[in-house]
Amino acid sequence: MPEKVLIYSRFPKAQMERFGQRFELLNAAGKPPNEVFSAEQLGGITAMITAGGTPLGGAAMDMLPKLGAIVCYGTGYDGVDLAAAAQRGIAVGNSPGANAASVADIALTLMLATTRRLLSADDYVRSGGWSGLKPSPMMRPQAGMLGRKIGVYGMGEIGRKIAARVAAFETEVGYHSRSRHDVPYQYFTTLDALAEWCSVLMIAVRAGTDTHHAVDAGILQKLGRDGFVVNISRGSVIDQPALVAALTDQSIAGAGLDVYEKEPHAPDALTALPNVVLSPHIGGHTLESHVAMQGCVLANLEAFFAGKPLPYEVKPG
Amino acid sequence: MPEKVLIYSRFPKAQMERFGQRFELLNAAGKPPNEVFSAEQLGGITAMITAGGTPLGGAAMDMLPKLGAIVCYGTGYDGVDLAAAAQRGIAVGNSPGANAASVADIALTLMLATTRRLLSADDYVRSGGWSGLKPSPMMRPQAGMLGRKIGVYGMGEIGRKIAARVAAFETEVGYHSRSRHDVPYQYFTTLDALAEWCSVLMIAVRAGTDTHHAVDAGILQKLGRDGFVVNISRGSVIDQPALVAALTDQSIAGAGLDVYEKEPHAPDALTALPNVVLSPHIGGHTLESHVAMQGCVLANLEAFFAGKPLPYEVKPG
Repeated sequence: MPEKVLIYSRFPKAQMERFGQRFELLNAAGKPPNEVFSAEQLGGITAMITAGGTPLGGAAMDMLPKLGAIVCYGTGYDGVDLAAAAQRGIAVGNSPGANAASVADIALTLMLATTRRLLSADDYVRSGGWSGLKPSPMMRPQAGMLGRKIGVYGMGEIGRKIAARVAAFETEVGYHSRSRHDVPYQYFTTLDALAEWCSVLMIAVRAGTDTHHAVDAGILQKLGRDGFVVNISRGSVIDQPALVAALTDQSIAGAGLDVYEKEPHAPDALTALPNVVLSPHIGGHTLESHVAMQGCVLANLEAFFAGKPLPYEVKPG
Repeated sequence: MPEKVLIYSRFPKAQMERFGQRFELLNAAGKPPNEVFSAEQLGGITAMITAGGTPLGGAAMDMLPKLGAIVCYGTGYDGVDLAAAAQRGIAVGNSPGANAASVADIALTLMLATTRRLLSADDYVRSGGWSGLKPSPMMRPQAGMLGRKIGVYGMGEIGRKIAARVAAFETEVGYHSRSRHDVPYQYFTTLDALAEWCSVLMIAVRAGTDTHHAVDAGILQKLGRDGFVVNISRGSVIDQPALVAALTDQSIAGAGLDVYEKEPHAPDALTALPNVVLSPHIGGHTLESHVAMQGCVLANLEAFFAGKPLPYEVKPG
């Protein structure tokens, strides 16, 4: 008989297909598990799959008294209360790096689309403005990438991949992270200094209490009127109202966002702006990245059920 | 007294500013020069600035009997009848490579935006589809860049810069051009073989009679249903009706276009399509690329008026 696995977050069916072939899945689909399943059903469950951004605290863990493994689909695990899991002897796993290339790609997509004003460009062609020789501010040349100073905030796997891609555009790359890494880019000891130096800030830092609202009004002001911010990490890293204000009064030039403070919700004040490019958290959303993430999830679950340590385990602290 | 220079094509004022500081400009602004200026005025002109894509044949050259130099603003010179110029002893110059980085960047912008369906993504967020949990085909994962086979057609300065950028996305890069180059990418002896191999075709080949409609229905069919085509070169390289047909019946997945057969006109059949990203020939349109192009134009004109060979001269054949 296949082992039982609870699906805690709401996932598209297709993403769970490979797990369903191997395990018996109980799909809570984002609802509190005790509203969907009986205490008896939940009592038999020892492992769950969750999305790293979904809040998962001690109370939810206690609905599954035999829970031994929380396996995050994706790189992030910021929603999981690691201390509560550790207290209960629950191992936490993730899918490190499996989506790094795909997320780095969306960061570059947003960077290029915002700095080259691609949405306005497409609209200008489609609406007939171009063929009608209608003047448009979008036809004014803007700063491109050549020699531009790009700052990468965070130098984990995704940050490194962003930096490598950005460097291929003949830019200058700088970065800030807690510590200096062995990478060929200029290191800045503070985010302030990085923001002062660069004109495009690429946020690739892990979400957490230490990075909550790290990109605030002050940082945005340092980016300046020619400045852009791109976020593919977590919405919580940016003070979203401060960003909306900076974009609205054009104290920065634009933003490219794949993540938001409250997903799947992008505030009206943001969606009304012409100088942003918005995507619905699709950074890791490629076929190859899902295959790789599923591979990590399966490896974690297989190891757990075999009584072995998780191969991709998240250590608290 | 400053030398006189005719401006043959229609250019934005800002782009001619540096020339106006140095020369006396007679601006025909895209009209036949003899409709704008008297024969006497034209008789005193020995040099002109034109856009490479603007048709310029022997008849127009003969309106300026003392014409000695045609200086193209930009890399292209496909509109200039080089044989007619040579016959009349007129030197032709261009701005080689000055916009290569900027054009390569727009190629990558279009490649990423089409393959990651950025316009649909932005629309899905802005229209409230995402926050309303409205199902959307755009949320289905698609092939990303990792390991993808990207074909570059043309290996001049722009082609090389495209290839270097594309390679940073952890792709496989192949190319076709008339001859093999000393580059670390797989060489294909025919465009057919390249199209058969790759899933994204990046057109970076110089326009000319030999490349006119080189990308036709047959090549598009070889790209296949997962295939994309990106064109930043000249519209004439693609059989545009064949492209529209392939996009409409989805025998290819999508296209990113910065250039069109008849500019500034993108046909309705194209602008109505959801699986294209369209930009109004802004490839070379960055501040740093204009500064560099203006530098080449000035260098060509200064040399000409000093009786020296053009430093950036186009040789016929």
